[in-house]
Amino acid sequence: LRRRTRDIATREAWVDAVEEGLAALLAEAKASRRRLHGVGVGVPGFVDFARGHIHQLTNVEGWEDVPLADVLGQRLQTRVRVDNDVNAMALGECTFGAGRDYDHAVFVTLGTGVGGALLIDGSLYRGAYSMAGEIGHMSINARGRRSPEGRGGLELYVGNRALVGRAVRQIKAGRRSAIRELVGGDLDQVSPKTIARAASAGDGLGREIFDYAADCLACTFASVTYLLQPQVFIVGGGVAYSGAVLFDPLRQRLAERLSPYFASRIEVCPATLGNRAGMIGSAALALA
Amino acid sequence: LRRRTRDIATREAWVDAVEEGLAALLAEAKASRRRLHGVGVGVPGFVDFARGHIHQLTNVEGWEDVPLADVLGQRLQTRVRVDNDVNAMALGECTFGAGRDYDHAVFVTLGTGVGGALLIDGSLYRGAYSMAGEIGHMSINARGRRSPEGRGGLELYVGNRALVGRAVRQIKAGRRSAIRELVGGDLDQVSPKTIARAASAGDGLGREIFDYAADCLACTFASVTYLLQPQVFIVGGGVAYSGAVLFDPLRQRLAERLSPYFASRIEVCPATLGNRAGMIGSAALALA
Repeated sequence: LRRRTRDIATREAWVDAVEEGLAALLAEAKASRRRLHGVGVGVPGFVDFARGHIHQLTNVEGWEDVPLADVLGQRLQTRVRVDNDVNAMALGECTFGAGRDYDHAVFVTLGTGVGGALLIDGSLYRGAYSMAGEIGHMSINARGRRSPEGRGGLELYVGNRALVGRAVRQIKAGRRSAIRELVGGDLDQVSPKTIARAASAGDGLGREIFDYAADCLACTFASVTYLLQPQVFIVGGGVAYSGAVLFDPLRQRLAERLSPYFASRIEVCPATLGNRAGMIGSAALALA
Repeated sequence: LRRRTRDIATREAWVDAVEEGLAALLAEAKASRRRLHGVGVGVPGFVDFARGHIHQLTNVEGWEDVPLADVLGQRLQTRVRVDNDVNAMALGECTFGAGRDYDHAVFVTLGTGVGGALLIDGSLYRGAYSMAGEIGHMSINARGRRSPEGRGGLELYVGNRALVGRAVRQIKAGRRSAIRELVGGDLDQVSPKTIARAASAGDGLGREIFDYAADCLACTFASVTYLLQPQVFIVGGGVAYSGAVLFDPLRQRLAERLSPYFASRIEVCPATLGNRAGMIGSAALALA
């Protein structure tokens, strides 16, 4: 059952939609309400996990200071847990996916933004105030681009917009690339997927863009490895499904940016649950 | 009881010295051996804490792959725990010092190198293979200076050598500064302490050097805050005792490099145990 957030105008309408959706799911499963164990919610933004309280959502208007676990719990008469969507995905991956065999892992999702979540001693670690894991705002250049989050944040260099912008700028400047053909000349249609497809087919520009993104990611992964020394980075999100064009240079650059004691003790692997990770993770949240 | 490492030629001689030192301490305390609870050792380098095994020491020759807890334990006939010196200091600070009231803290020591240790949910976190906390190797510039640990590592910019080098270069280039007078014209005598003293007295060059170091530290602290969201950074080591000339710009730059949700929830404070932190921490290690 899927609903598009943009089709639902208000918070109240959203709670209504969840209630209806829940009834539909129970009907479909021919299950009574008593079989309902709880509800898990993963949202894009800052959440106080302990209270199930939303501080603010990224890119979604009207969701500041919402005690969602209380609101939804009263309406649905069940236990509701609310977490950051990346934490939910990470919980899914470490319960049922690529993270199953690790106790110390860093989950990274690549998309419009770059999100992260931390598995420490077998549990998700949310930091002192539930907002940890914002790997996309870690700086790769103290004098780099400015944003409301500081300077030189990773996602300014490897977020979807940055990748697409790089490709389009170079093609507009006259660079020949299979990317232009893949979008039939319409540069508005360039996406990270197009770039990845071109790169996989050996296109020079596509490869350059992925090599650059991989090196920026490697810089942050090296810093995280020096700080936390996890066993593995598990990388999901759209761009992560590009395969070797991302993972080969990423692993190589990471090794170059680490001393041997660290390089020999770190792995990088793709997430396995794909875009079901968030849903599976939210369920895991409800069961946890 | 203090001994200088450089006065002790071999590993065997070092173990002898520890045995003699222990006997002397017990005699001084008029205590029998049965009162000895254990021995804690903090060493500068990479340690497998669980096994008390030294992988390698930084700047000390001849200490590769040493099962120190076993060697020392057999000789002294007591339980021996071996940890990284920064972890030991952090344990001291969080048991008896500035970290007492926190469950989530990052300890940073400023000196020749920049070391770190992580307090997570009230316990020291050593990472998957006991080598976590190497905050000095976190990169502040993906295209920055190269070192065996990667590129742009924090300590290349704020380690003692970098601070002194900056001061000396500018003075040699003709810049007027109280630093020159403080060392009686002998630039080989410039130390971080001299620079701090000049800065505290309002010297322009001294302030510039501390502002720059503070901004580099702030870049890394911001990245660590986005990743881990601790409650506090506790900063020790020589330079940290410079007071306001370091901490004022450090707090200000850190706030500028964080979004309000993170900036309002982080503190930076000086360590309180001074150069006894390592000794007190090693004792805490033995008792833990």
